[in-house]
Amino acid sequence: MAIEPFDTVDLIRTKRDKGALSTEQIDWLIDAYTRGYVGDEQMAAMTMAIFLNGMKREEIRDLTLAMIASGERMNFDSLSKVTTDKHSTGGVGDKITLPLAPLVASFGVAVPQLSGRGLGHTGGTLDKLEAIPGWRADLSNDEFFAQLEEVGSVICAAGAGLAPADKKLYALRDITSTVEAIPLIASSIMSKKIAEGTASLVLDVKFGSGAFLKDPARSRELAQTMVALGKDAGVATVALLTNMNVPLGLAIGNANEVRESVEVLAGGGPADVVELTIALAREMLALAGQPDADVEAALKDGRAMDTWNAMIRAQGGDPDAALPVAKETHVVTAPRSGVLVQQEALPFGVAAWRLGAGRARKQDPVQHAAGIDLHAKPGDTVVEGQPLFTLSADEPERFARALEALEGSWRIGDEGDAIDDGGPLIADRIA
Amino acid sequence: MAIEPFDTVDLIRTKRDKGALSTEQIDWLIDAYTRGYVGDEQMAAMTMAIFLNGMKREEIRDLTLAMIASGERMNFDSLSKVTTDKHSTGGVGDKITLPLAPLVASFGVAVPQLSGRGLGHTGGTLDKLEAIPGWRADLSNDEFFAQLEEVGSVICAAGAGLAPADKKLYALRDITSTVEAIPLIASSIMSKKIAEGTASLVLDVKFGSGAFLKDPARSRELAQTMVALGKDAGVATVALLTNMNVPLGLAIGNANEVRESVEVLAGGGPADVVELTIALAREMLALAGQPDADVEAALKDGRAMDTWNAMIRAQGGDPDAALPVAKETHVVTAPRSGVLVQQEALPFGVAAWRLGAGRARKQDPVQHAAGIDLHAKPGDTVVEGQPLFTLSADEPERFARALEALEGSWRIGDEGDAIDDGGPLIADRIA
Repeated sequence: MAIEPFDTVDLIRTKRDKGALSTEQIDWLIDAYTRGYVGDEQMAAMTMAIFLNGMKREEIRDLTLAMIASGERMNFDSLSKVTTDKHSTGGVGDKITLPLAPLVASFGVAVPQLSGRGLGHTGGTLDKLEAIPGWRADLSNDEFFAQLEEVGSVICAAGAGLAPADKKLYALRDITSTVEAIPLIASSIMSKKIAEGTASLVLDVKFGSGAFLKDPARSRELAQTMVALGKDAGVATVALLTNMNVPLGLAIGNANEVRESVEVLAGGGPADVVELTIALAREMLALAGQPDADVEAALKDGRAMDTWNAMIRAQGGDPDAALPVAKETHVVTAPRSGVLVQQEALPFGVAAWRLGAGRARKQDPVQHAAGIDLHAKPGDTVVEGQPLFTLSADEPERFARALEALEGSWRIGDEGDAIDDGGPLIADRIA
Repeated sequence: MAIEPFDTVDLIRTKRDKGALSTEQIDWLIDAYTRGYVGDEQMAAMTMAIFLNGMKREEIRDLTLAMIASGERMNFDSLSKVTTDKHSTGGVGDKITLPLAPLVASFGVAVPQLSGRGLGHTGGTLDKLEAIPGWRADLSNDEFFAQLEEVGSVICAAGAGLAPADKKLYALRDITSTVEAIPLIASSIMSKKIAEGTASLVLDVKFGSGAFLKDPARSRELAQTMVALGKDAGVATVALLTNMNVPLGLAIGNANEVRESVEVLAGGGPADVVELTIALAREMLALAGQPDADVEAALKDGRAMDTWNAMIRAQGGDPDAALPVAKETHVVTAPRSGVLVQQEALPFGVAAWRLGAGRARKQDPVQHAAGIDLHAKPGDTVVEGQPLFTLSADEPERFARALEALEGSWRIGDEGDAIDDGGPLIADRIA
């Protein structure tokens, strides 16, 4: 047995008693956890202590760097293009990556978008794209680099070799109620993004009902922490603080979110999805050296759509194929005329999840046609009897529990009533 | 897979967010942990959350009862004698169980003393008694009941069937730095003691340098919590709050602590050991219905010694056999004349442990002859060159690290200097 330089129990006690861990201690802890010397039960106690007692900025930096060091680090120096990447903390109806990656790539920038699958009420980008017949998320390293060079954008599954300590730690946090801690969220996201080797990064940090962190102040703290971590690691990083009190766009699900993304790429689509796509594209292109890029033009003139089609085809998908349609639908209509004053993101996310659009356990499949289509947004005038939203599912017995989740989540008021939408879509920019 | 009534992640979140768990939730949690449905990593996160956020009185009661319910519960109704028991939170040189159990039993009371082995700097009662040639800690149920009826006192190992949830939880707390939490200590001790079926219980709750909890206020809180738990469960319970700033008696180890215990049973022995033995015996006998028992007389006239001899013989030991003697000794002498003003318990406990009297891991053996004999106590006048204490070990290379532990732990001052002993031996009584 090799002599270990630290005692796990001592390190847990230090954090339990509100102390700070040194760089050497954090490096050892993450390495020893990755190789199994530090047990899951010990790391669970440590993460709960971190959750409750916090970490200093230096500790979060050390934790991030230690998780990067636990695995491979990608290198894009051989590419002829500048790289830029985007990460969203996740929300309801958040399909922005789909139009955004080809839009930015249409300016000659490489967008290596390593994505995940959904768990719980927030959807996963790969789940959405897998609604497209033939499309595959897994690429070899050679395919990945070739597509970045030729098409510019790649949305694919992250390899197992990037930040394995983070993968192990994330799975542990998920079953021990230690997910929502800022030091752990920030280091988890940033270790993956930095290991992915991007030169610059734009973060979409959400707050509100459908967000991971509901409180805008905590979302701001998370954004500030991640921007600082990016800069510490030499990755130019900017964050937008965005509102997730209301579902983003009109589609919540998988196939229907692909449809809405294609509308945006065709120069249409819901105003909020277009606004956020353009704002994030501008930030990414500015970090990639094109601060004056005419982003709207690339949506209007078909350049972004051309890149989308090439990207989908490069990964085996048919961009012209019909997307799956659900076997059953259930329409909810307006009980009276007035103004839609509330449409709360979280219940709609939970309802779509219960319809089959999301998964309860990692190993579960998703039903690509399941989800919700909204026919009105907060502030819209509605007439008694008009459709407000349509639920879609492959199994009709799912409607009851989805409707249960939606109880009290939307409300029709009168002209002049305050709209309960949490304010502007983009609340702040942190750089 | 059976449907579980609660979700582990939700229960951890409740405690993480400073909520209280219901009786049903705690019952389920402990049962599900015992049968392995709740994982060690989840329980580790829960215990850290309990450590940092505490538990209400009702939760501690529920936790204690759930741990009792996880296993067997002993029943002494078939005995012709009243039962009483004692528990000490552990200290340095704490051999009190050895003279106390036979002393109380000599009054016709049954003392079923289920004991443990030592870990770290606090010794274990079974380790001490195993220094006696032939003595064995493991008894069958029949042997145990027969000895209680015939001799009155039994000191033996607890069976695996009592509070198995506590055993599992204690092992987990040990490796996750969640040992010193009052709700967890109190429920651990009291679940075992209540499951052991005693009618009454006297607790020796220590504070100071050599104690588990150093702070008298926290020791008092622990004592109050345990007394309330005992009463809730119908066990008449009293606690003494006792001072562990200075080693108890003159012997720290195993064989030498047996020797000192026999001195007390012979009517002699160090004043502090005699004082605490008598005080605890009076409390136990009062709870057993003999408030006026003449405890000192039983030490002076040999009744307690007779019971000791019978108890040791009943468990295969020879009370007249020579005890093991260490191969090597190292004497520390007074560097100058004056008054011994400091003799700190913890370093002496650590030094005895390093000499081989204690174990670092559960599976390690102890060296029965290893330990420390003190030749002076705080307040004693000493003359330059006189022996202050003697270290004993089977391997001479152990002396250096033991002496290292003792650096700065004792001090010779002048007549009139304050004695650094933390005050009276018995600080308070909590009933």
